[in-house]
Amino acid sequence: MAGDDGHRNAAGLGVDPDREKEAEIHTKLRAGSLKLYELEKQIAPVDAVRVRREFIEHETGTTLENIGIFSIDVDRAATRNCENMIGAVQVPVGIAGPLTVNGEYAKGAFWLPLATTEGALVASVNRGASAITKAGGAEVRILHDGMTRAPVFAAESVGHAKEIANWAEAHEEELAAIAQTTTTHGKMTGLVTFIAGTSVFVRFEFDTKDAMGMNMVTIASAKIAEEIAKATGARLIALSGNMCTDKKPAAINGILGRGRSVVAGIALSNELIGKVFKTDAKTMVEVNYRKNLIGSARAGSMGFNAHAANIVAAMFIACGQDAAHSIDGSTCMTTIDATETGVYVAVTLPSLPVGTVGGGTGVDTQQECLKILGVAGGGTPPGANAKKLAEIIGAGVLAGELSLIGALAAQHLARAHQELGRGQKR
Amino acid sequence: MAGDDGHRNAAGLGVDPDREKEAEIHTKLRAGSLKLYELEKQIAPVDAVRVRREFIEHETGTTLENIGIFSIDVDRAATRNCENMIGAVQVPVGIAGPLTVNGEYAKGAFWLPLATTEGALVASVNRGASAITKAGGAEVRILHDGMTRAPVFAAESVGHAKEIANWAEAHEEELAAIAQTTTTHGKMTGLVTFIAGTSVFVRFEFDTKDAMGMNMVTIASAKIAEEIAKATGARLIALSGNMCTDKKPAAINGILGRGRSVVAGIALSNELIGKVFKTDAKTMVEVNYRKNLIGSARAGSMGFNAHAANIVAAMFIACGQDAAHSIDGSTCMTTIDATETGVYVAVTLPSLPVGTVGGGTGVDTQQECLKILGVAGGGTPPGANAKKLAEIIGAGVLAGELSLIGALAAQHLARAHQELGRGQKR
Amino acid sequence: MAGDDGHRNAAGLGVDPDREKEAEIHTKLRAGSLKLYELEKQIAPVDAVRVRREFIEHETGTTLENIGIFSIDVDRAATRNCENMIGAVQVPVGIAGPLTVNGEYAKGAFWLPLATTEGALVASVNRGASAITKAGGAEVRILHDGMTRAPVFAAESVGHAKEIANWAEAHEEELAAIAQTTTTHGKMTGLVTFIAGTSVFVRFEFDTKDAMGMNMVTIASAKIAEEIAKATGARLIALSGNMCTDKKPAAINGILGRGRSVVAGIALSNELIGKVFKTDAKTMVEVNYRKNLIGSARAGSMGFNAHAANIVAAMFIACGQDAAHSIDGSTCMTTIDATETGVYVAVTLPSLPVGTVGGGTGVDTQQECLKILGVAGGGTPPGANAKKLAEIIGAGVLAGELSLIGALAAQHLARAHQELGRGQKR
Amino acid sequence: MAGDDGHRNAAGLGVDPDREKEAEIHTKLRAGSLKLYELEKQIAPVDAVRVRREFIEHETGTTLENIGIFSIDVDRAATRNCENMIGAVQVPVGIAGPLTVNGEYAKGAFWLPLATTEGALVASVNRGASAITKAGGAEVRILHDGMTRAPVFAAESVGHAKEIANWAEAHEEELAAIAQTTTTHGKMTGLVTFIAGTSVFVRFEFDTKDAMGMNMVTIASAKIAEEIAKATGARLIALSGNMCTDKKPAAINGILGRGRSVVAGIALSNELIGKVFKTDAKTMVEVNYRKNLIGSARAGSMGFNAHAANIVAAMFIACGQDAAHSIDGSTCMTTIDATETGVYVAVTLPSLPVGTVGGGTGVDTQQECLKILGVAGGGTPPGANAKKLAEIIGAGVLAGELSLIGALAAQHLARAHQELGRGQKR
Repeated sequence: MAGDDGHRNAAGLGVDPDREKEAEIHTKLRAGSLKLYELEKQIAPVDAVRVRREFIEHETGTTLENIGIFSIDVDRAATRNCENMIGAVQVPVGIAGPLTVNGEYAKGAFWLPLATTEGALVASVNRGASAITKAGGAEVRILHDGMTRAPVFAAESVGHAKEIANWAEAHEEELAAIAQTTTTHGKMTGLVTFIAGTSVFVRFEFDTKDAMGMNMVTIASAKIAEEIAKATGARLIALSGNMCTDKKPAAINGILGRGRSVVAGIALSNELIGKVFKTDAKTMVEVNYRKNLIGSARAGSMGFNAHAANIVAAMFIACGQDAAHSIDGSTCMTTIDATETGVYVAVTLPSLPVGTVGGGTGVDTQQECLKILGVAGGGTPPGANAKKLAEIIGAGVLAGELSLIGALAAQHLARAHQELGRGQKR
Repeated sequence: MAGDDGHRNAAGLGVDPDREKEAEIHTKLRAGSLKLYELEKQIAPVDAVRVRREFIEHETGTTLENIGIFSIDVDRAATRNCENMIGAVQVPVGIAGPLTVNGEYAKGAFWLPLATTEGALVASVNRGASAITKAGGAEVRILHDGMTRAPVFAAESVGHAKEIANWAEAHEEELAAIAQTTTTHGKMTGLVTFIAGTSVFVRFEFDTKDAMGMNMVTIASAKIAEEIAKATGARLIALSGNMCTDKKPAAINGILGRGRSVVAGIALSNELIGKVFKTDAKTMVEVNYRKNLIGSARAGSMGFNAHAANIVAAMFIACGQDAAHSIDGSTCMTTIDATETGVYVAVTLPSLPVGTVGGGTGVDTQQECLKILGVAGGGTPPGANAKKLAEIIGAGVLAGELSLIGALAAQHLARAHQELGRGQKR
Repeated sequence: MAGDDGHRNAAGLGVDPDREKEAEIHTKLRAGSLKLYELEKQIAPVDAVRVRREFIEHETGTTLENIGIFSIDVDRAATRNCENMIGAVQVPVGIAGPLTVNGEYAKGAFWLPLATTEGALVASVNRGASAITKAGGAEVRILHDGMTRAPVFAAESVGHAKEIANWAEAHEEELAAIAQTTTTHGKMTGLVTFIAGTSVFVRFEFDTKDAMGMNMVTIASAKIAEEIAKATGARLIALSGNMCTDKKPAAINGILGRGRSVVAGIALSNELIGKVFKTDAKTMVEVNYRKNLIGSARAGSMGFNAHAANIVAAMFIACGQDAAHSIDGSTCMTTIDATETGVYVAVTLPSLPVGTVGGGTGVDTQQECLKILGVAGGGTPPGANAKKLAEIIGAGVLAGELSLIGALAAQHLARAHQELGRGQKR
Repeated sequence: MAGDDGHRNAAGLGVDPDREKEAEIHTKLRAGSLKLYELEKQIAPVDAVRVRREFIEHETGTTLENIGIFSIDVDRAATRNCENMIGAVQVPVGIAGPLTVNGEYAKGAFWLPLATTEGALVASVNRGASAITKAGGAEVRILHDGMTRAPVFAAESVGHAKEIANWAEAHEEELAAIAQTTTTHGKMTGLVTFIAGTSVFVRFEFDTKDAMGMNMVTIASAKIAEEIAKATGARLIALSGNMCTDKKPAAINGILGRGRSVVAGIALSNELIGKVFKTDAKTMVEVNYRKNLIGSARAGSMGFNAHAANIVAAMFIACGQDAAHSIDGSTCMTTIDATETGVYVAVTLPSLPVGTVGGGTGVDTQQECLKILGVAGGGTPPGANAKKLAEIIGAGVLAGELSLIGALAAQHLARAHQELGRGQKR
């Protein structure tokens, strides 16, 4: 362990806690005269976390040995990342790779950290990574980059609604200047308006550099929205009007992009398909066609992929991304084209909200995962690290898709051979 | 810490490692003659994890101090939960509550563990929980319960497709009997068929008791699918044909249900709305109307809620659920009805895949979170714990929705008053 | 023309109209003391239509020569099909065929009447029909048959909502008996329930035999809904709660089916593809893959087809179907499988609401179109004609899809050859 | 009837047909040595239509008296609107109005022609029109105007895909110039690109003035697409790649708009609601909330309205629009806001593809319907007529929605009163 301080946290024990004061606190907590969230005002965070955990142990009749063991900087975690902190869960991290990525930001071989409790996932990504690397590396591109927020306003009539939308569009430059007073890192790059009856949505887009950027964008949007309301008589109903769209699957993110829009692809030869996946090009194409395209369409799904969410969630948790962003982040389409020499497999992720500064990226273990990828902190130029991370995740999803589809195809092919062996013809 | 073994793991150090042997292993790893995933065959898991981490440190030029600190049972984690394990990330856990739940399985006051790195989330849920508890507790109901898997078959023609579907429907009982040979815990409860051209999807549904159940259902489906193929001449293309639908947002899960379908609601009086949320019923109704209904519809979204994903993801990570299931799990509709005395707020989650046994539920820290909720392990009768967990998460989502909508409404109302004060009329 | 009566209508002139009375009527209409819709109470329908048209000519300063020319039975049209009738528009009808259909109800060669003003449509369907017929005829199957209506009820709470849903499900038999008191032709075959917060939807399904059946089902639903409200204390909000779903694109209709669910397919040999479509199997597969599957998915579309709506709308208008049902009716997925000997093309239409009795099927010209197809009036056994019509439309859509995709593929192939000729390599 | 010529067509009889020649033709048709579509090359269209009809009568054993009666210009119809023409169906036209419209193009009172065979529709729109007119008229706005076509190209890799998209975006001006060589009426106003793996979609948008514009846009797109392919090495797969999106429900049309995007609204006072609809504001709001918003969302529907398709289809058929465009045209969201004095009802139609020149607008009866609305032919300035038509249809949809929701609300209110009378309390 790193030292005293690290050890203290890891053990979940404060040095020399004031037992008397704590006893008093416990009494107050149980009486309800002190709130759990007020603890940090009375004692140091490391102690507050412990006392709170002890209180929960008492209330629920449980012993929470392991949750109390952590090494992350509790001062930071308890104030910036998590209120009412009682400890931490440990999510196992596996490594997949090396995965060769030929992006515009990520170039070279990468080891992917995946935080997961679901057996077989890391192994699966690993196999895909191996195939991609053997085939020369995943080609990856960022198609669009912009974090969005869309406040909703109420108009008095549809005519008023159109006036509000027109005003916002005509004053984009002024609104961008207002946004600039709230942030030195981000930059408003555009806005679009939508009307639904008397509801007007103005969707602002920002270049948030290495931050995922929701906070920055929300703060800026608040100020801009106020200006719009003042100038047009619109009533601001909610800073987020759900046309952003944040943490919900939404067509608008696929059409206009949100966060980093990424596409990754790889050409596999017939030989490599046979060797690594024990199947053939035709079978892989058919699996993707019937499962990822027809099956998803028939299910009324927005996800045309095999299991992109597994990779996105595992990398998000490992790398300190907002785990709830797995929802938008995993909206992925997987395509497999038949080619002259095998297949070309690609994944398209129009809405991957990632960052390398802010949020959970500063939590010690998560920061280490970012370091493994060489993307911890701000990039040079600003934004380069976040885009590099997006490209790596894109390549990781490609590895995962490849591997699962390959496995399904191999089973299918095996069955076909088996049946052939049994003399069946159908 | 709990003892020697716990300490060892927490420090990430094996007792008396064979340094010589490890040096040899490192040489092989770097030479590529030994694969990372083969380590557990050569040395004990605890050492394999450390050696692998050291290798990654060397390869990436990083120092991974914190990832190596963990207290969870590495023998279990490295074999069942995560291949190529190098350690663990620590995700801060905050507590929200007490939250009174009036379910059919969950009855009483609960403390909700939320694993998150996003500041303000726990505080938000906490405020919602407080309001709900003051209002008498969330009423929660399980509407449907069944885990599904839908293999896709290829038919020779649309006529053949119909024959396959008909055969499967006519032999449901036999197929259920075959399923029963693969599991003692689960039970196949039905099947439905879908046709898209020559692709036939048979969607099996199982009562998986306290397990989330994907594995159990997949194994059973494999055997049933084989029988269908044999009897009908259908070619089995993939065990999952994406009409299941797993880890992708999909209308089919909303229509037919998947996992546990949960609805939770609470009536709030005008007085309580004013006191807790500093707003009024009319404003809350309008925020929900323009944001969660109109905004989501206009965005082409499948999520008609404010931020259900935040709560679902945080509780899933805390409680050892499959984090990628946040995608289906957070497909939530939030409704706010105007009532005579205030509002009635409800959340509907048609597809919440949760379990209290298997998967990540056995990881030590996650198990402790389940204990906090009183749902660790199998329930009595079987299934009772998983349903209880589903009810609690439903109530937690209700708390989160209530809190964020209340906050948005309060801001809106504040602005309205401000404008009034400034003599504005619009 | 058929005779005096037909001539009279065709000319839009009543025999010996009472000019004096009509002048008085005109005065009243202009003064507003008589409403346009009250005309049929004062004079014969044929005269009412003319007088109303004259009034509109006067009001709008137009001369409506052609709208007044029609031969359909005005007594029927003006009372059953169209209020405030002023005449008729003439929609050109073209014929495509012969189209060989191998259905369970439609067997043999059919000539398809298509009412359209869009040049090239009939020619396109004709070419597809020719290819299908040469290939031995379209195989067509009805997968499901049932017209639905889903009233929405308000509950007091989510607990009450579940009670209502449970009650309805438990009393299906009694509710079916109540339905039976309202209709001798139709038969309630099932119900399913859905809950969204405090809103409860009960979706009734009926076998409506040869009728499209919306009216029959609505009348029965009204009576059943009343019973549910009475028994459970649910408040009936609207007889149609939009989960039916009628005349709106909706995933529920794809999942559960509505109206007649039809699938049609055809195997085309490489030789025939080359001869009729001047393209090859590989190119057709690629066009369908990139356009109908990937393009539609990327657009957030519910229609995975090329132009099914054209055929559905044209046949619906020709055959007296409800034209607004083109919306649900055209929700089609087109698939093209690569086969050993060419391609297998199929269309899947899960929600085709058609009938051969009632509605517009009795209008004289439309009835003649139904006669061309051999499906005018009720079938033997009841329902056989409507199913036959559904099968023919399914085959017609297949012809249209085949033709357009073939044309796109041919252009693509031509370009490829051209480029080859120019020595381009990419 | 208008005269000899009109009479001749109306009777479906050519003057002095050459009976001998026709007998010969019939023999050839039956022998298959002459194709049905070749008739116009041998005899005048009016005779070709008749001979073809006679052939169909013979083949199907039917008598087609009424289909043969029409007055529209057969020379035009048989060549421009409908191949293989055998006559026409007569669709009854009813009139609703007067409807006061306060648009930017449509100003004043209008009489709406609705072609339908569904009883009650015209009466329903009429009632809504009356309410709107009493309330001062519908406010209507065009939010966006642009017809689109999106060819799909195949790239060799995702990197190549990005190059293609970048090239197209960088050369917008040149591409617009190329477009201009194909049309004097339309004007390319922009393009956007989308990538899905190796598929690249370039969505061109045009100002098509008074034409609906699909043909114009398709012709221009063909030429532009050729240039893109030549410059980038992209393979043009299909001129329509389904991201246009034409005649399929699609989120992209809601987000980006297609055709004319229209919004229409009306404020209704409590008094008027009571008088015209026999209900109250609160009940109307609740019906819309539970049916059009919650019900549609729960059904996975893209249509958040009651029956917009009825009005769109009926007006499209009456006014010579492409009936299959009812699919995109009816994608409508209906909102009802509670206001201080009653309700504000609005409909939003993001994708209404309409025109007043070209296609079916020149068919005589359809042209008369356009004349009733004062929008036949090209407007001054160009585009004004099509926009006026779009505004009127928007107002018509508002009338229809208002009327049906009012009726549902009235029934609901009536039941509530009834129950009150029976002493029920729930």
